[in-house]
Amino acid sequence: MNAVSKEMQMCVDACLRCYQTCFGTAMTHCLEQGGAHVAPPHFRLMLACAEICRTAAHFMLSGVPHHRHLCADCASICRQCADSCDGLDGMDRCAADCRSCADACERMAG
Amino acid sequence: MNAVSKEMQMCVDACLRCYQTCFGTAMTHCLEQGGAHVAPPHFRLMLACAEICRTAAHFMLSGVPHHRHLCADCASICRQCADSCDGLDGMDRCAADCRSCADACERMAG
Amino acid sequence: MNAVSKEMQMCVDACLRCYQTCFGTAMTHCLEQGGAHVAPPHFRLMLACAEICRTAAHFMLSGVPHHRHLCADCASICRQCADSCDGLDGMDRCAADCRSCADACERMAG
Amino acid sequence: MNAVSKEMQMCVDACLRCYQTCFGTAMTHCLEQGGAHVAPPHFRLMLACAEICRTAAHFMLSGVPHHRHLCADCASICRQCADSCDGLDGMDRCAADCRSCADACERMAG
Repeated sequence: MNAVSKEMQMCVDACLRCYQTCFGTAMTHCLEQGGAHVAPPHFRLMLACAEICRTAAHFMLSGVPHHRHLCADCASICRQCADSCDGLDGMDRCAADCRSCADACERMAG
Repeated sequence: MNAVSKEMQMCVDACLRCYQTCFGTAMTHCLEQGGAHVAPPHFRLMLACAEICRTAAHFMLSGVPHHRHLCADCASICRQCADSCDGLDGMDRCAADCRSCADACERMAG
Repeated sequence: MNAVSKEMQMCVDACLRCYQTCFGTAMTHCLEQGGAHVAPPHFRLMLACAEICRTAAHFMLSGVPHHRHLCADCASICRQCADSCDGLDGMDRCAADCRSCADACERMAG
Repeated sequence: MNAVSKEMQMCVDACLRCYQTCFGTAMTHCLEQGGAHVAPPHFRLMLACAEICRTAAHFMLSGVPHHRHLCADCASICRQCADSCDGLDGMDRCAADCRSCADACERMAG
């Protein structure tokens, strides 16, 4: 029915997981903590990471070959977002989900 | 970290599952089958259902109280999409995921 | 080619204008100002408003009749976002674009 | 208020224009024509083009430097979509908007 391969489905799952964690954490934990958690470079990266993850998943589901470029972009942004989370309180799960997503996207980008 | 309650997380999961199935099935199975599977009212409903599911999940993650309205809209579109799938070949999983999502969204809409 | 009526196109334009202003202002002016500009209720409303505007435009372009519900939701969120902007420095254009979009969406919702 | 430069705003406008034309044309003209207009490679490209345009605009508005990669991806997909439109009836405006957007995105990608 849905022509997504097992490996691609794992990458879609990692992207939608990372999207949820980044966006949900930004909108709750980061906004509530304030200070360094809403510093523009960090907060923008959190939302950009959430958005590219959502879009990479969308491209994989849409059956076009262009998902490879999106997955490469996604992996790069996820790694930067993970590094930005490392220095901040309560962002361990976010950093971990970003790195898992980057790994999956790098495999997909080939 | 992420302030989403257990019940809300279940609804987010149902929405993102339905989004994946509707969008993925439309872009692969429906386009490849052609005929009634790409009849405008059915195909538009598939994509509208995918989009409202994605947006309802986004609202739940964003921590605003307005997710209730989105979840009510989502439930209604999911039920119509499920009915549209019932008459077509190879759409059983799509119809099932739409109904599961509608149930979860109705509980969330209160 | 594109079956969107003139009235609907005006509403799509108002929605995409409001999306750009709310999202762009949140990510630049609000994050840079800090303080009350990133208070969770205000900031979440800015992003929720941007998202519902983007989704309402998408539904109008997609040719489904369900855009009416989305436009009604959009108008309500835009009015609340405009009120939230009223008390804050440098948010006049954002409040104005929210109210123009609310007007257009109310006409579309019927 | 909104820190988007004049050149970037022109690119955002081109992206949102192309998004509207590609998505609106796919959902109305292409679905109504059927045949070659809903052939999977063409139709998928139309929706992928709409999505990358919407996402590239979002990245430009979000104030992150990663918009350059997204704009490069967007330009490439827009050119392919324009070529795919060339062979089909009633797709002149879509091809033109894709090429205008590709030009603007290439300037932005640098």
